[in-house]
Amino acid sequence: MNLENFFTPASVAVIGASRNPQKIGYGILKNIIEGQFKGKIYPVNPQAQEILNFPSFAKIADIQPLPDLAIIALPASLVLDTVLESAKANIKNFIIISAGFKEVGPEGATREKDLAKIVTEYNLNVLGPNCLGFINTHHLLNASFASTSPLKGGIAFASQSGALCTAVLDWAAKGILGFSYFVSLGNKIGISEIDLLELWENDANVSCIALYLEGIKDGRRFLHATQRISLKKPIIIISPGFSQEAQNAISSHTGSIATESQTLTTVFSQAGLIHAKNLEDLFDDMTVFANAKLPGGRNVAVVSNAGGPSILTTDEIIKQNLFIAPLTEKTISNLAEKLPRIINLRDPLDLVGDALSTRYEEALREILHEQVVDAVIILLTPQIMTEIEETASVIVKLSKKYDKPILTAFMGGVSVERGVRILNEHKIPNFSFPERAVGALRQLVAYHEWIESSKGKKAFFVENKKSILQISDLPKLNQIIEKGKQRKNGFLSDQETFEILKAFSFPIPPYGFANNSAGVATMARFIGLPVVLKISSPDLPHKSDLGGVKVNLDNFEKVGKAAKMLETIVKNESHNLSGWSFLIQKMIWADHELIIGAKKDPNFGHLIMFGAGGIYTEIYKDLAFRLAPLEKKDAQALIQETKVYQILKGYRGKEMANLGKIGEVLHLTSNLVMQLPEIQELDFNPLLVSDQEATIADAKIRV
Amino acid sequence: MNLENFFTPASVAVIGASRNPQKIGYGILKNIIEGQFKGKIYPVNPQAQEILNFPSFAKIADIQPLPDLAIIALPASLVLDTVLESAKANIKNFIIISAGFKEVGPEGATREKDLAKIVTEYNLNVLGPNCLGFINTHHLLNASFASTSPLKGGIAFASQSGALCTAVLDWAAKGILGFSYFVSLGNKIGISEIDLLELWENDANVSCIALYLEGIKDGRRFLHATQRISLKKPIIIISPGFSQEAQNAISSHTGSIATESQTLTTVFSQAGLIHAKNLEDLFDDMTVFANAKLPGGRNVAVVSNAGGPSILTTDEIIKQNLFIAPLTEKTISNLAEKLPRIINLRDPLDLVGDALSTRYEEALREILHEQVVDAVIILLTPQIMTEIEETASVIVKLSKKYDKPILTAFMGGVSVERGVRILNEHKIPNFSFPERAVGALRQLVAYHEWIESSKGKKAFFVENKKSILQISDLPKLNQIIEKGKQRKNGFLSDQETFEILKAFSFPIPPYGFANNSAGVATMARFIGLPVVLKISSPDLPHKSDLGGVKVNLDNFEKVGKAAKMLETIVKNESHNLSGWSFLIQKMIWADHELIIGAKKDPNFGHLIMFGAGGIYTEIYKDLAFRLAPLEKKDAQALIQETKVYQILKGYRGKEMANLGKIGEVLHLTSNLVMQLPEIQELDFNPLLVSDQEATIADAKIRV
Repeated sequence: MNLENFFTPASVAVIGASRNPQKIGYGILKNIIEGQFKGKIYPVNPQAQEILNFPSFAKIADIQPLPDLAIIALPASLVLDTVLESAKANIKNFIIISAGFKEVGPEGATREKDLAKIVTEYNLNVLGPNCLGFINTHHLLNASFASTSPLKGGIAFASQSGALCTAVLDWAAKGILGFSYFVSLGNKIGISEIDLLELWENDANVSCIALYLEGIKDGRRFLHATQRISLKKPIIIISPGFSQEAQNAISSHTGSIATESQTLTTVFSQAGLIHAKNLEDLFDDMTVFANAKLPGGRNVAVVSNAGGPSILTTDEIIKQNLFIAPLTEKTISNLAEKLPRIINLRDPLDLVGDALSTRYEEALREILHEQVVDAVIILLTPQIMTEIEETASVIVKLSKKYDKPILTAFMGGVSVERGVRILNEHKIPNFSFPERAVGALRQLVAYHEWIESSKGKKAFFVENKKSILQISDLPKLNQIIEKGKQRKNGFLSDQETFEILKAFSFPIPPYGFANNSAGVATMARFIGLPVVLKISSPDLPHKSDLGGVKVNLDNFEKVGKAAKMLETIVKNESHNLSGWSFLIQKMIWADHELIIGAKKDPNFGHLIMFGAGGIYTEIYKDLAFRLAPLEKKDAQALIQETKVYQILKGYRGKEMANLGKIGEVLHLTSNLVMQLPEIQELDFNPLLVSDQEATIADAKIRV
Repeated sequence: MNLENFFTPASVAVIGASRNPQKIGYGILKNIIEGQFKGKIYPVNPQAQEILNFPSFAKIADIQPLPDLAIIALPASLVLDTVLESAKANIKNFIIISAGFKEVGPEGATREKDLAKIVTEYNLNVLGPNCLGFINTHHLLNASFASTSPLKGGIAFASQSGALCTAVLDWAAKGILGFSYFVSLGNKIGISEIDLLELWENDANVSCIALYLEGIKDGRRFLHATQRISLKKPIIIISPGFSQEAQNAISSHTGSIATESQTLTTVFSQAGLIHAKNLEDLFDDMTVFANAKLPGGRNVAVVSNAGGPSILTTDEIIKQNLFIAPLTEKTISNLAEKLPRIINLRDPLDLVGDALSTRYEEALREILHEQVVDAVIILLTPQIMTEIEETASVIVKLSKKYDKPILTAFMGGVSVERGVRILNEHKIPNFSFPERAVGALRQLVAYHEWIESSKGKKAFFVENKKSILQISDLPKLNQIIEKGKQRKNGFLSDQETFEILKAFSFPIPPYGFANNSAGVATMARFIGLPVVLKISSPDLPHKSDLGGVKVNLDNFEKVGKAAKMLETIVKNESHNLSGWSFLIQKMIWADHELIIGAKKDPNFGHLIMFGAGGIYTEIYKDLAFRLAPLEKKDAQALIQETKVYQILKGYRGKEMANLGKIGEVLHLTSNLVMQLPEIQELDFNPLLVSDQEATIADAKIRV
């Protein structure tokens, strides 16, 4: 998509411009004019001679030369004809403000489909429909009906919710947030978040990107783009739909399909995206990423004139996995020279209630100069003697001298307002509550660490074909998959599953099937004791559900007894098990029950899962996820993200589990789903692991 | 403590009153006068004739009749003499504003001790030292040097940090928070949080209590008082010291000793306290508890003019364990009659961007009338046509008609300000961000549920002596404890531990001790195979650390081999094990490894712990806590608080664990620590549990 002059047009037409101040077509035209747009402005309205002192045109084709951008603010029923007519007149760029498309139900959905056809046929660039328009502050163009225009600055903001745009603009007007772009995406018939990301990647006016998305259009492309761009500019994202209830609401709002929360979280973390958990976080994150320096590490110093708040801040620092900076002796002795004897020389540094701006300055110079300090949070409470504005000015002065992030919390309302104004003017991120400063700092640290960990990993997420094993009997495996797809629940049988696992050389214990007690005994003899006996039936995906698993059968009497018991279960008609047989496996002794899984997201592809297995999987959810493909080193990183890793790496004198073997199974799993992409879901549970081996004791595959 | 006229004096003296506006002694006098105090006001300053138009006295004894309250604003060095002199003149009530006591180090600590002696000897009521004073808005008395005075209202606030007081007052001046009392506690030499709680319990001017505490003075008394008062009025508490770093800072701030976070959390939950996790929460909690009704359940309806924000709110509702209200058919058909066809009739209810106040009103009437809705959150974004003030007025009107909590989030800055003002005037809790409204609502729900669960449980936390078993050989057990206390690490030996467990009839497997292989064999024969063999030594509290545990020894060859292996370990001099022997126990088969523990808090007494045992204890920390004593029904509730309960109650066809037996062990543990209160810490890990039994396989006691 060539969006070169979409956001920087030399001329703009407003189709549906109006003289009625209640109408959106009036609001947009007024915003363009009042924004001091330097290009040409053309109202289009057959019923008017002129609007807001600009001569009006009956139709867009009458305008010569043709405008670079057409903004459509007409009732939905008129939109298609207008776009078609304009496209025929060779207009390429459109904002469609009008609502009444897929967000309003079947009728609107049909209209949107028809519109999409025109867009494709004439190769149009369209923002919307059902949007607010856009603002490009550096081009002095407010092509929206938002009633507020933002400060010029480095943030490029795009939102799939128009209402959120108006609220964000209104909030931002009070603070220090400056924007370069402000884009309301609407239903995303044409221009999507990816187009914007690619546009903003090399735009010098953009230092930080923020997105509100209810759905992501092209998962893999989004992932690749954000992974690349995150290395250059921070990308903040807020995305609802983590609950089923919210997903339902999304589909009736913008008609988007929300991605499952686990997939989203994985994508965000793999792409280095800054995940704002709520609207307040979004603001805090924009505030620090647009205005603060990145910290070099996790050591935070707190300087305040208030003991209580500085202690609360300390708690939050530790809670957020940051550290209280361990001040060096040198700094402490320097502080001792300058500060009154009553002050405890430590971090958090409480300068005590009567601290004037000079005391703040002396202390801050030492603290900012201290090597071990990576970031400073400055608290101020309005005591009787507190020099609020002077202290703000001291902070401004020092912030220019030192290359460390400085965040402030001037606590209170009216009393601190003038100090806050000084901080705002000089773009020092200030927070009403100190704990919020800590939260925002945490995000800066996380982003810095992501950048560091990505260094030297050029294009580190590549769909590396070379890493995929060559499987000779792929056609046969695909036949198995095809057969499975015919089944209602899509589950492969144990026989089919084992066949696939063997083809990929997964480590599985010796096994065999039998249909009766005699067969079980023969098979057990063949495999060798001790064995495990299980009921195998596509109708029983969780084998243990009916008590269908008998372990540690170490003599033939036990084997025979177990076979009888299982026979009673399978022959119980209420269980309704079809196509059952006995599965006999060699009993494996292991120290750890783990789980490896994979699940296919329709938009982002396969997610690989690793974690604690057995009965604990569901209650502790100690699981880590990563998108396939998975390189071997990614596999080890994945293992280390779980809590169970603390046990696997050797615990209280126990042997370390064979992490290399676990990694190999993870890598094989990634290859499996890359080669057989029709696999919807798989579970290796338990994966039995000792210091020697990692063996898949049970497996389920759904296609 | 008789505080009857402390906070409602008929006359007040300010010792150290000053004509210098920079001095605190001036600020306080001015505040009293400007607050329009109706009683008598006496400045005390030997150097002045009059101050702020009030005649000044040379010393307090000169004032007749004696004032009810003396406020001391003198340098620390003069405080003791002044208090002593005033006490001799029969003054009973003091606020000591002066700093320079235990918060400044050893010298100050000595001064504070000397002051305490005078306080005790003359039976004085003292607020402070090192405090800001207090404000009683209903008595029109601002006896503090805070520069702002709060709105009159129902919140009684007390804080151990003076700086926090000034910030809270300043913040509050902007919002809807009204206060009855505002008390700066300082170093709490006399008046403590408990005295205030008891005072406020029956004060009709107090509807809600909020506390900032760095330390709690008398744990058990605090617990009993808050448990009782919480049933009448909500008590909000914010308390730092959850991290070691914060605890260090606390001891250098007010010299308090912070209680361990787990104990605090347990106390808060058992006493129904509303725990504000940070300062922003404190504000939100005060806002809703002082102004909103309590919800009858967890069903929330969201009404908005903005799709995106209402979806974000929905996510937060689910995240907070609340529910989206399932609207009934009747309500939906009523809404259908009144609302435009374009609107999706569901909860969250998006009234769409062009919603005027009438649409809000029609929708809200139906939603508020709906039986299944327990609480309503109303969102508003400033669209071009939005009637912000009219919508606020509609909400005010409806809030008076319906007995359900209504919380609003008018989103934005300048545009929504006038609407917010209307909401504030009528005490509708409004939040800048919708997710914060959800968080505050969650606290209302939790408090309501705590009240409900406490119904019929009059004085439900009683130190019930009757529930304690009578142990005949208590003197002998106390001898064991005494012996243990002589040891460096305080651990009892396994022999001693088992003796105590037997005396209390705890379920333990048959066991015996031996000093060599021959003894092991004899003992194993006596106990019966299979057995477990362990190294027993006070120097090895974690027996498995050196590989000192051999399980499932089911023949004598294995027993002999295991004894040899352990002998090699104990004789390895680098392990440095003194007084070792072999411990032989009957092998127990069980489905579950659990843990029961107890720990003594110096302030609150014993905490009982239950949770997942074995190696998972430390990584998943799936533990629940309760203060002793523990009744049998409490024990079951404790078990149900853990995640492992999901497995214990029967999982995937497995038998339910014997929860009754687990409860008995918990109850016995409670009795044990109540009878032998010198026990500092104990661990039963693992507690082996099957569908039949609960058996303590290993135990550690530290005294």
